[in-house]
Amino acid sequence: MPAGISIDRKSAVPLHRQLEEALRGAILSGRLSPGERILSSRELQTHLGVSRNTVLGALEQLHAEGYLVTTRGVGTFVAPNARALLTERKPKSSTQSAPSDRVERFAAAQSLTENFARTMPFRPGIPALDLFPTAQFKRALDPSSWTPAFLDYSGPYGHRPLREAIARRIRQTRGVVCSADQILITGGAQAAFSLVVRVLLNDRDAAVVEEPGYRIVRAALHANGMRIIPGHVDADGLDVASFRNKRAKLVYVTPSHQYPTGAVLSLERRLALLDWAAKHGAWIVEDDYDSEFNYTDRVHPALQGLGDGQSVIYIGTFSKVLAPALRIAYVVVPRALRAAFRAVQRVEGGAPDAIVQNALANFIDNGSLGRHIVKMRKVYNERRAFANAALSNLANLSLRVIDSHAGLHFIAELPDEIRDAAFSRQAASAGIVVPALSEYFIGKPWLNGIVVGYAATPVPSAKEAIEMLSRCG
Amino acid sequence: MPAGISIDRKSAVPLHRQLEEALRGAILSGRLSPGERILSSRELQTHLGVSRNTVLGALEQLHAEGYLVTTRGVGTFVAPNARALLTERKPKSSTQSAPSDRVERFAAAQSLTENFARTMPFRPGIPALDLFPTAQFKRALDPSSWTPAFLDYSGPYGHRPLREAIARRIRQTRGVVCSADQILITGGAQAAFSLVVRVLLNDRDAAVVEEPGYRIVRAALHANGMRIIPGHVDADGLDVASFRNKRAKLVYVTPSHQYPTGAVLSLERRLALLDWAAKHGAWIVEDDYDSEFNYTDRVHPALQGLGDGQSVIYIGTFSKVLAPALRIAYVVVPRALRAAFRAVQRVEGGAPDAIVQNALANFIDNGSLGRHIVKMRKVYNERRAFANAALSNLANLSLRVIDSHAGLHFIAELPDEIRDAAFSRQAASAGIVVPALSEYFIGKPWLNGIVVGYAATPVPSAKEAIEMLSRCG
Repeated sequence: MPAGISIDRKSAVPLHRQLEEALRGAILSGRLSPGERILSSRELQTHLGVSRNTVLGALEQLHAEGYLVTTRGVGTFVAPNARALLTERKPKSSTQSAPSDRVERFAAAQSLTENFARTMPFRPGIPALDLFPTAQFKRALDPSSWTPAFLDYSGPYGHRPLREAIARRIRQTRGVVCSADQILITGGAQAAFSLVVRVLLNDRDAAVVEEPGYRIVRAALHANGMRIIPGHVDADGLDVASFRNKRAKLVYVTPSHQYPTGAVLSLERRLALLDWAAKHGAWIVEDDYDSEFNYTDRVHPALQGLGDGQSVIYIGTFSKVLAPALRIAYVVVPRALRAAFRAVQRVEGGAPDAIVQNALANFIDNGSLGRHIVKMRKVYNERRAFANAALSNLANLSLRVIDSHAGLHFIAELPDEIRDAAFSRQAASAGIVVPALSEYFIGKPWLNGIVVGYAATPVPSAKEAIEMLSRCG
Repeated sequence: MPAGISIDRKSAVPLHRQLEEALRGAILSGRLSPGERILSSRELQTHLGVSRNTVLGALEQLHAEGYLVTTRGVGTFVAPNARALLTERKPKSSTQSAPSDRVERFAAAQSLTENFARTMPFRPGIPALDLFPTAQFKRALDPSSWTPAFLDYSGPYGHRPLREAIARRIRQTRGVVCSADQILITGGAQAAFSLVVRVLLNDRDAAVVEEPGYRIVRAALHANGMRIIPGHVDADGLDVASFRNKRAKLVYVTPSHQYPTGAVLSLERRLALLDWAAKHGAWIVEDDYDSEFNYTDRVHPALQGLGDGQSVIYIGTFSKVLAPALRIAYVVVPRALRAAFRAVQRVEGGAPDAIVQNALANFIDNGSLGRHIVKMRKVYNERRAFANAALSNLANLSLRVIDSHAGLHFIAELPDEIRDAAFSRQAASAGIVVPALSEYFIGKPWLNGIVVGYAATPVPSAKEAIEMLSRCG
C-alpha cells in the first residue's frame, strides 16, 4: 500500500479514523513529503477496499487539520508548508525540565501513607466492611434529589445539608461547639491534614506530633517541609511537659483514643494542652478519628468544646464509622480561621462530589448512621473482648494487651526478646497485618509490640489469625 | 438551682448529657470551686426532677473525666487539683498565630474561581443539567459491587476500572496516546490544576497562560506564587510568537476550543507549540474540557497524541459532558512524570470516593456516556444554532457572534460604544449570566463582548433571555 497505509478490519477503531491516523502518521514521519500528491479518493477506496464515505471522511479531517491541500481539478497534496514545520521537528530525547523541588519530599513521605493492602485479619483502622449498610446507603442516595441545581457546581466548602447534619451530630455526641458554617468537607482525613498544613504553616514552621503517632500526619508535614517536634505520649496521652519550652505553631493530637497507643488524654493534660496553646499562640489539631466507638460509655467530649473554641481545629472522618471508600472527612475551624480555610479550599478545587455528600446527609438525618453505630459498637466490643482475651492467654507467646476499651484497635506488647518489626514481618507473611509499634516512632522507640485492629475481623477469623500469630516470633 | 444548673425537657439532648454539661460548665466557669462538695445524687435527683439513672450517668461521666472525686461515705467533690489547672486559665482574647503567608494569595485568587451562582440563562460552562441521565446513572451506581474490598481504601490514583475506561475512550475519541497507569483521577479540573502546579512548579517559576484565558488556572498559579506570562490568542488560538523568547516552565492551552474565544488551535500552531516546548524543556498542559461537543464533525485529535507524548499533560473532565456535581476530572501524565504525580497525589489524600468513580466507569463501559453525548450533541447544536441566529439578528443591538461550532458556548462582540462589563452587569440584574470578555484578560482587553453559554438553555428560555438582552446596553 502507498506509504505503508493499512487498515485493520477487526479493530474497534472506525475505518475512517484508521485511515486518517495512518495518513497523518505517514505525513508526520516523512513517508509522505510536503507537496507530495496523494492518491485520489477513488484510488484509496479501491486500494484499501473501503467505502467512499470512509475515504472522504478521513481526507476532510486531514484538510481541516491543515495536513492536506487540494487544488481543484489537479489533486490533493501534502501541505507544502508542512516541510518547514516538520523538518524542524527532529525526534529528540526528552529534555523537559524537572518537576518541582517539593516532589522529592513528597516521594520520601509516601512510605508513611496508608498501605492500600487488601483487607486482612487485624489490619488497623478498618471498620467491618462486610457489615456496611448497603441497602440503607443505597436508599440515602435518593436520585430524586438530583435536580439541575443539585447537579451544578455545589458549595465549595461542602454540601450544605451535610455540613448541617454533621454540626447537629457532633454538637450532641461530641460536645463540639460549632455551627455548619465553620465546617468544611474534605475528601478524607489526609486531604484535611493537607488543607490544615497549607492554611496554617509556612515553610520550616514547627509542628508537634504525638510520639508514637499517626504516620499520615507526619507524611503531610514532612512533604510540606515542616519541622517536626515529637511530643511524648504515655498512658494519659500527649504530655505537654515534653515540649513545653519548644516553639511550635501547631500541635496534632488524638485525645479520644491516641493513635496508636489507645491512651485517652486525661482532663489534666487536656487543660494543660489548651493552656500551652494559648500561651504560645499555637493551633491544636484534634483528630477525633474513631471516637464513635467507646465500650465503656464513659467518653470525654471533644477537646474543641473544652476550650474557648478559638484555638482548636477539629477533624472527623466517616472512614472509620462507615467506610474508607466514601472519602469524606470534615474540618471544624475556629471562626477566626474560616475565611483562610475557605480561600484555600475554594482555589484548590472545593469539596467532594455532591452525590455521596447528599447520601451521607440523608443517612445521618434519617437515623441510619446512629443505628449503624449502635450495632457496630456491639459487634466491635465482642470482637475486642475476644481478641483481648485470646491474645492475653496464649500458651507459647507472652503478649501484654493494653486495651483502652475504645476505638477499632488496641496494642499488645511483646516480650523484649521478640522484636516487633521482625514479628510483624513474620505475621504479614502469614497474611496477618499487625504493624510494629516501633514504626510509629520518629526517635528511639520505647514500645515493643503490635497494633491489633480487631473491628473488621469476625471471631472465627480472629481465632485462626491468633493461632497463626502464636506461632510467630 | 445549685450553681445555676437547669434542665430543658424539650431539648433533643438527653437529660444526663444536659446535667453533665451543666456541671462541667459550672466547674470550668468557677461557679463550683475546686474542693467544693456537690449535692448528693439523691439531692440532684429531687431538685431537678430527673431519674436516678440520669444523675448517676452524669456523675460517672464527670468522675471519668477527672472533674469530680468521691470520698467513700463522705461525699462527692469538685477535684481539688482542678484549682491549679483552672485558675491558670484566665479567659483571654485570641492570640493565636496568623495563618500561613500563602493564605493572602489564595484569598486574592478566590475572585477568579468558579462563580457558584444558580443556573441562569446562558451561564457558560454548564451542560444541560435538566437532561442529566438520572436513571442510567442510578443503575450505574450498582450497589451490588460494593464489596468489602471495594469499600476499603481504594487506589490513591483513582479507581482502576475508571482509569481503564477513560484510557480506552480517549485513545479512540481523542487520539490520546496513553495507558491507564498514566492516568490520575482528581476531584474536578481545578484540583487537577492544583496538582499540576504543585508537581511541576517551584515558587516564582513562570507559566504561560492564554490571553484571554480561563480564570481558574490563573487563580491556581497566582495562589501558588507563580509568575504569569500572557500568550496572545487570535482566531487560530494561542500564538507561540507572542512568548517565543520568554522563559517559562509550563504553558497552559485549550487547543480544541479555546476558552473563552472558542478558537481552534491550527495545526501550524500546534506544531510550533510542541517545538517551543521541546526547545525550552517546558511542559504543555492541554485542557480538553469540552472537546466532546463539536458540531462540524471535523475535530482535531488531542495535541497530546501529536507530539511524542513526553511533554504534554492532558486534562479532561466530566463536568461538561455530564455534570459539575460529579467532581471528577483526570490527568494523563507523561511516563517520566508518573512517579512525581503519584507521590504528590498520594500524600495529599488520593482520589475521590469509589462510589461515584465506579458508577462513572460502568456508565462509560455500558455505552451510556456515548449515547448521552450523541443525544446532547444534537440538543446543543440546535440551541447553538438558535442562539447564534437570534443574537446575530437583533433589531436594536448589533452583536457579532463568533461561533466555532464547538463546545458549550460562543462569544459575541459588542459595538464599541457599549462596554462589555457594564452590559454584563445589566444582563446579570435581569437574571442572565453573560460574562464580559474583558474579564478574561490580564492586560488590556482587545475584545469587547460577552460569553454566551447556550448548552444549558432550552430554546424557549433562550428566546426570552435574548429578548431581555436586546434591551440591555
